Amino acid sequence: MWHLTLSNIAERIGAKLEGDAHYPITGIATLTSALPHHLSFLANIKYKHLLDSCRAGAVILHPDQAHLYSGHCLISDNPYVGYAKLSQVFARSPDFSGIDKTAQIDPTALLGTGVNLAAGTIIGPNVTLGNDVSIGPNTVIGAHTNIGEQTSIAANVTLYHRVNIGARCIIHSAAVIGADGFGFAKDGHDWIKIAQLGGVTIGDDVEVGAGTTIDRGALSDTIIGYGVKLDNQIQIGHNVELGDFTAIAACSAIAGSAKLGKHCTIAGACGIAGHITLVDAVHVTAMSIVTNSIANSGVYSSGTPLDKNQKWRRNASRFKQLDQIAKRVKKLEIDMVASKLINIETT
Amino acid sequence: MWHLTLSNIAERIGAKLEGDAHYPITGIATLTSALPHHLSFLANIKYKHLLDSCRAGAVILHPDQAHLYSGHCLISDNPYVGYAKLSQVFARSPDFSGIDKTAQIDPTALLGTGVNLAAGTIIGPNVTLGNDVSIGPNTVIGAHTNIGEQTSIAANVTLYHRVNIGARCIIHSAAVIGADGFGFAKDGHDWIKIAQLGGVTIGDDVEVGAGTTIDRGALSDTIIGYGVKLDNQIQIGHNVELGDFTAIAACSAIAGSAKLGKHCTIAGACGIAGHITLVDAVHVTAMSIVTNSIANSGVYSSGTPLDKNQKWRRNASRFKQLDQIAKRVKKLEIDMVASKLINIETT
Amino acid sequence: MWHLTLSNIAERIGAKLEGDAHYPITGIATLTSALPHHLSFLANIKYKHLLDSCRAGAVILHPDQAHLYSGHCLISDNPYVGYAKLSQVFARSPDFSGIDKTAQIDPTALLGTGVNLAAGTIIGPNVTLGNDVSIGPNTVIGAHTNIGEQTSIAANVTLYHRVNIGARCIIHSAAVIGADGFGFAKDGHDWIKIAQLGGVTIGDDVEVGAGTTIDRGALSDTIIGYGVKLDNQIQIGHNVELGDFTAIAACSAIAGSAKLGKHCTIAGACGIAGHITLVDAVHVTAMSIVTNSIANSGVYSSGTPLDKNQKWRRNASRFKQLDQIAKRVKKLEIDMVASKLINIETT
Repeated sequence: MWHLTLSNIAERIGAKLEGDAHYPITGIATLTSALPHHLSFLANIKYKHLLDSCRAGAVILHPDQAHLYSGHCLISDNPYVGYAKLSQVFARSPDFSGIDKTAQIDPTALLGTGVNLAAGTIIGPNVTLGNDVSIGPNTVIGAHTNIGEQTSIAANVTLYHRVNIGARCIIHSAAVIGADGFGFAKDGHDWIKIAQLGGVTIGDDVEVGAGTTIDRGALSDTIIGYGVKLDNQIQIGHNVELGDFTAIAACSAIAGSAKLGKHCTIAGACGIAGHITLVDAVHVTAMSIVTNSIANSGVYSSGTPLDKNQKWRRNASRFKQLDQIAKRVKKLEIDMVASKLINIETT
Repeated sequence: MWHLTLSNIAERIGAKLEGDAHYPITGIATLTSALPHHLSFLANIKYKHLLDSCRAGAVILHPDQAHLYSGHCLISDNPYVGYAKLSQVFARSPDFSGIDKTAQIDPTALLGTGVNLAAGTIIGPNVTLGNDVSIGPNTVIGAHTNIGEQTSIAANVTLYHRVNIGARCIIHSAAVIGADGFGFAKDGHDWIKIAQLGGVTIGDDVEVGAGTTIDRGALSDTIIGYGVKLDNQIQIGHNVELGDFTAIAACSAIAGSAKLGKHCTIAGACGIAGHITLVDAVHVTAMSIVTNSIANSGVYSSGTPLDKNQKWRRNASRFKQLDQIAKRVKKLEIDMVASKLINIETT
Repeated sequence: MWHLTLSNIAERIGAKLEGDAHYPITGIATLTSALPHHLSFLANIKYKHLLDSCRAGAVILHPDQAHLYSGHCLISDNPYVGYAKLSQVFARSPDFSGIDKTAQIDPTALLGTGVNLAAGTIIGPNVTLGNDVSIGPNTVIGAHTNIGEQTSIAANVTLYHRVNIGARCIIHSAAVIGADGFGFAKDGHDWIKIAQLGGVTIGDDVEVGAGTTIDRGALSDTIIGYGVKLDNQIQIGHNVELGDFTAIAACSAIAGSAKLGKHCTIAGACGIAGHITLVDAVHVTAMSIVTNSIANSGVYSSGTPLDKNQKWRRNASRFKQLDQIAKRVKKLEIDMVASKLINIETT
């Protein structure tokens, strides 16, 4: 069976091996499910008690926990990063290679070396595909779109025309990049469509999740920075700019012309209003709405906590009285002072 | 014209016929729009007054309402279930049958009998399709994926590699099953991708709505139980587990490693945090956020009610003072007691 | 280089030219990025100071601001509408024309003149395509579906069977129209599927964004009115009715059988409950939930504002005490009155 030795693994993830250099590992598993041919890892110290009953052939451990496991150990300052690096060794390559006979390639398209085009791919006019680009089945690439080397695009993706994607990106299925931004001018009853004349520019090492949509710009480009990670079903409006390394979890929506700084994290199902700016390192918790610019890095939230429906109903209905309640409290405070004065006077 | 007789229908839905066994029915319609060749149903007693002017050839009624309709009646303990069962008789079969000449089938794929593959379908290596599976146009099935018998998959669906789908499932268009879960380890500035090495396992009789995404697991599988019903544009993160018969309405997002029990119902546009557990029969109302585990079945909610914008603005701005207001109320209560004591002392 | 003269442009957008009729324009740009061969526009008076340093060859201006720009001007009562109309002149036509040899067209389909079918399109039985319809690569059109003239459908779209789409519509990639509505009858543990026997009817001049899903009706049709504009990743449930000119921003969900009037605007990520009615000209702000019918036009909102997470936690936890706080305020008010009476009595 295909395997890696512990010395192979130690070298790949930059860990120090304490144990048998030739011990064979065939897969990765969690501390609770690992068998003797698996490697496991302790990424969160609160699970350290699981080491007692762990059956893994070896475990990636921080130096401070190295003494807690009696089996083979791979000592790393960041066991979670070690696991991440190792996981890539066990990942599958795509199901296809070479250029399928059913791929439709416009004669003006330029293809680098080592390009893989699966069945049913459609490559439009003047497209450029860098070396080692892989495009999945039934994916459509519009005219004048450029894709950097080693980028991998899954099945059923749509890239419109004049989209630029960097190197080493991963685009998942049903993603749509470069559809029209939502722009209309009101003319009496009518909505007059504003043609979306810009494009989309995506940096290197970006991942775009399944079903995520990134609209093209109205006049200039929508811009996704270097190393940005987008989960599934995210909506990126026209002319949004996302700073380098910003990561956004599933189902969040970033409205048109919003600008997010670098190293931001936006949790799932958030909404960010259009035409606002967030500085670097802004972190927004799940299902929050951001309607104004944020000038200071930090953690931000909105919303109300879950409760039993019956209790929630009573509290939620009071929300509609909140301003009135606040005013009544203020009045009580004034009356209280007045009342005390009277008391003082009467004594 | 194609029709069913009332005795046919009574037999199919297990109802007792009161009326003409040979009366022909060509379709189903609501109480208000039904014509004499239609069958209708009374599912909610608040609409019983509509029977007075109803023109339907026959109506499915609960025994308690049987006396309210002068025409033919089909008496059933659950008229809504009767309607549901009958509706399936009038449903269309897919637009295609047999194996289209443009379908691309890897030679290692195993196909059962009666499989339908529409134009442009792409079946990867080592795929297994059970008997009577139907796959819609331009749908892509990745390597080593298994699909149970009688499952029907619509057009433009993407199943990645190593996905297991049960029997009699329905998967709607633009659904994506088995894309990578959103997992990265932070290494300084960089996000190191955690390859998603698990798969997806889906039970029998599951329905997956259009545009819904179900991510593959990081190490073990994401698991969708028996009889689960998922509406459109739902996001199921990696290693989520959904218990049998749980139903989720459109646009809800279930974050990674959340575990939902059996018979839960999650209304539309909810968010459920990762790594939490909900017991059986938890019901969450629309647009609620669940951030902690739920240990007791029941109905849960979060959020605030709609209001006129101007009024809402005043109340919402007070939300930011809520802790301070609560403290001021507490202080007023203390002062009030003190004030009363003074009053008592002065009298 | 291809260009328009200012007199061409003035005629197309119905503006009055103040400047050189022969001056050539090759593109549109914002006030800050425009170069001498660009046309720009001042749509919002708060940006009028940008005219001072603007380098545009010409600017579309309202008569009241005409004196503020020293270069060529196009005077229009609505510069934003002028820009919108002009933008369409600079828009690309689709990347394909004619009927691609790989398009699969059922022999019973009826095609008008000037129809464009890109590579990999699949046109089902009894489909009707009006004159000048364009269908993008790998798009699938189900049986008995009708598409009005000049409608343009992008790549990887899915239209199910018996969908009717008007003239001059635009449907973006990964949109799904006509998938089953989410309907089940509970029969003990089981969910019995209610076959969705209705269709979808979409008026003229409708735009449907990328990844948006519009479900077919249960018995009658889901109806989208004339001139409706839908952004990306919107969910329209079965038997929803949207009035003419209503516009909905990205990621909103409209539950089954909801009826929205004309000229409504629903901002991003809103939820609208099923079986309710909104009159004409209802405007809902972002991430609001609408759970009851709205009988009066106006602007509506729900939710709470963003705050620093630490501060938000304190306020949010008080939300669960809101009903109790309101009751305590009421009690304090009663006590205060009583206290005052005592005071009065003691003085």
